[in-house]
Amino acid sequence: MNQIIENPSRIEWPDLVKRPQINSANLAETITEIINTVKEQGDLAVKSYSLKFHDFEPENLWVTRDEIDKSPKLVDKALRKSILQAKKNIEKFHKQQVAKIKKIETAPGVSCWRKSVAIEKVGLYIPGGSAPLFSTLLMLAIPAKLAGCKSILVTTPANKSGDVDPAILFVANILGIENIYKGGGAQAIAAMAYGTQTVEKVNKIFGPGNQYVTAAKRLVNMDGVAIDMLAGPSELAVYADETCVPAYVAADLLSQAEHGADSQVVLVAVNQQIIDKVIEQIHRQLPDLPRNEIIENSFLHKRFLVIKKVNDAFDFLNCYAPEHLSIASENAEELAEKVVNAGSVFLGNYSPESAGDYASGTNHSLPTNGTSLTQSGVSVDSFVKKITFQKLSNKGLKNIGRSVENMASAEGLEAHKNAVSIRLKK
Amino acid sequence: MNQIIENPSRIEWPDLVKRPQINSANLAETITEIINTVKEQGDLAVKSYSLKFHDFEPENLWVTRDEIDKSPKLVDKALRKSILQAKKNIEKFHKQQVAKIKKIETAPGVSCWRKSVAIEKVGLYIPGGSAPLFSTLLMLAIPAKLAGCKSILVTTPANKSGDVDPAILFVANILGIENIYKGGGAQAIAAMAYGTQTVEKVNKIFGPGNQYVTAAKRLVNMDGVAIDMLAGPSELAVYADETCVPAYVAADLLSQAEHGADSQVVLVAVNQQIIDKVIEQIHRQLPDLPRNEIIENSFLHKRFLVIKKVNDAFDFLNCYAPEHLSIASENAEELAEKVVNAGSVFLGNYSPESAGDYASGTNHSLPTNGTSLTQSGVSVDSFVKKITFQKLSNKGLKNIGRSVENMASAEGLEAHKNAVSIRLKK
Repeated sequence: MNQIIENPSRIEWPDLVKRPQINSANLAETITEIINTVKEQGDLAVKSYSLKFHDFEPENLWVTRDEIDKSPKLVDKALRKSILQAKKNIEKFHKQQVAKIKKIETAPGVSCWRKSVAIEKVGLYIPGGSAPLFSTLLMLAIPAKLAGCKSILVTTPANKSGDVDPAILFVANILGIENIYKGGGAQAIAAMAYGTQTVEKVNKIFGPGNQYVTAAKRLVNMDGVAIDMLAGPSELAVYADETCVPAYVAADLLSQAEHGADSQVVLVAVNQQIIDKVIEQIHRQLPDLPRNEIIENSFLHKRFLVIKKVNDAFDFLNCYAPEHLSIASENAEELAEKVVNAGSVFLGNYSPESAGDYASGTNHSLPTNGTSLTQSGVSVDSFVKKITFQKLSNKGLKNIGRSVENMASAEGLEAHKNAVSIRLKK
Repeated sequence: MNQIIENPSRIEWPDLVKRPQINSANLAETITEIINTVKEQGDLAVKSYSLKFHDFEPENLWVTRDEIDKSPKLVDKALRKSILQAKKNIEKFHKQQVAKIKKIETAPGVSCWRKSVAIEKVGLYIPGGSAPLFSTLLMLAIPAKLAGCKSILVTTPANKSGDVDPAILFVANILGIENIYKGGGAQAIAAMAYGTQTVEKVNKIFGPGNQYVTAAKRLVNMDGVAIDMLAGPSELAVYADETCVPAYVAADLLSQAEHGADSQVVLVAVNQQIIDKVIEQIHRQLPDLPRNEIIENSFLHKRFLVIKKVNDAFDFLNCYAPEHLSIASENAEELAEKVVNAGSVFLGNYSPESAGDYASGTNHSLPTNGTSLTQSGVSVDSFVKKITFQKLSNKGLKNIGRSVENMASAEGLEAHKNAVSIRLKK
């Protein structure tokens, strides 16, 4: 378990930043069949696949108003209070992402602006089953609401009795979301992508899920339905120097590893002693954790490295491009300037990843599998299009018309030129 | 040619907003072979495909400093001036998109912010051949520069003598871009996606192109390389009321149609008389346009509709979700409030689409084929990731720690809870 890689050379990096391979052979075929059956049979297919794969068969595929109204009573008071605090912080952070229109006069008489317009219909997939992820509903529905999406549909698997977890319904209730469809896995993705007798087709699908959900999102996306991202297994990279607290670093690594056997943790420390202390702490904390078996499996593909020079360490971390990056150092804010590729960054000894997972206010839907090289996490931006507008006055067209004519002509587009000339003639 | 659809019912809309089908059968196989050959053989393969498909075989695949330095002399003075004016306006508009960091205290001691960080290496494909699109280089390279991308690679086909169009080199020169690779089509996309002996693999590929380029972008994207968008044929929808100038509307439709036989124009007028006048103007202007044959072919799948009620008209246009939307009305700015789905919008009688194509300042790389339902055009956003950061003080963690613990516990993630508890214990 404890092989440590010391100062690897840069030519070894591409191998070291590789994620654990997921065996998804034959998945496309199975998922295509599910999607096609849902396309043909609609709700009936969703029901029968939910029974087959998720072991539930709700009488009614739609959560009723009554079920939503009852939810607060079924949720522990302390949890309700916690959810409300998280909601407040997430709203506060995301509200700043709502763009205001700013008109710019690029040339006299030429006025241009961008306007963020909400995507009309969005579908949010919320995993349920063993762990109903009500926190993900907060993370997706709050920016959707702030963006102004007209229609927000939630799909989520029910439990064996056909009920959706009360905490999910409680979150829906406080956010004013009423359309909740009891469907899990690939069949729920297909229902949102193509519609059923009772589900209206959405424009964009959001939400995490297992490899079946991800495969379904990939397939409907190839067929032209927009998606937020293709979520791979979750991952955390930690940079630790002498000022870190090894017990905290250990706790963060353990928290990441409990997500699943395919999760990955990476620790880059500036010396061997730090790693030794972290490992000692892992051994101390692990036995008390209920998901220790999952953690041990995840740890099979952990990477612990010693990289002495701070710039090399951050070059390596940028090469890894982690979903979550913790900078376990008292000097974290200065070191953060070196971050080029990451989804969300946790600074200093009092910023555990789990704070961002739930309640700091940042979004926990983040780019995995190295996609933070080019992609951002979910934000209000994910729920809008930015449409550009331009209005030229007669004077404005006179100001730039000659340039348009010259450039159009040089590109061999005389009709483009003519569209200006005919207006300037008058 | 002149079939006009009057007040179609909403059930007819899905058919009416369909784009012309492109026959791209067997394209995937051909393009996969090109990509694989470039992967194996690198520059040599790019050279031989350029000779095969683009009829040029440059001695040197890279544009030299000398070629760039000579470019201003080879470009007409008036065109140089026009390009400089366009550059100024595009820069002015896009500069506003550079996001500033704003730290938000979501709860006392919990500080969160987003930081836009440039994608490190970007590749810009600029179509050449019959019409070298130097305007597209302005539209892609200016936001890339403003974003702060470290490495900007341009690929573009050369002409038969092996030279890149001087206007493209002139634009590269004024923008300080030095890495210009002479490669066209799918082979250029493959070179950027996977690298060659002399090309460094990029993180994200931008730029329009024909169906071969688009197919290549689709395939490398499925293989994990980020792209800006999949560009379909260009399209323009015009809304025209009694205050429009039919000659201008005709000129705009003609300018759109000259892009290619697969381009589409849609005209929605509030009465039949407007359409009659526009058609009369089309017949008057068409004969003088050099690309009239292309225009006539494009017009085979134009759509001219009469929709009497303004709200219905805009509902239809939003359903069509055009790349370009012109509002040919003196009341354009008020009507613009009704726009939900569009790439770029042109308001009033003095704002021809060609102004936005070249010099108003807005970007001309826009979502086609109905993707403006969910997607935006290229902007500075396209060249950055927005990384979130959070820093909690000891007090901050005390403030939200209990909420994190409760929520983690309710989701069955005890190690997540522990990462907070272990810090609060002290």
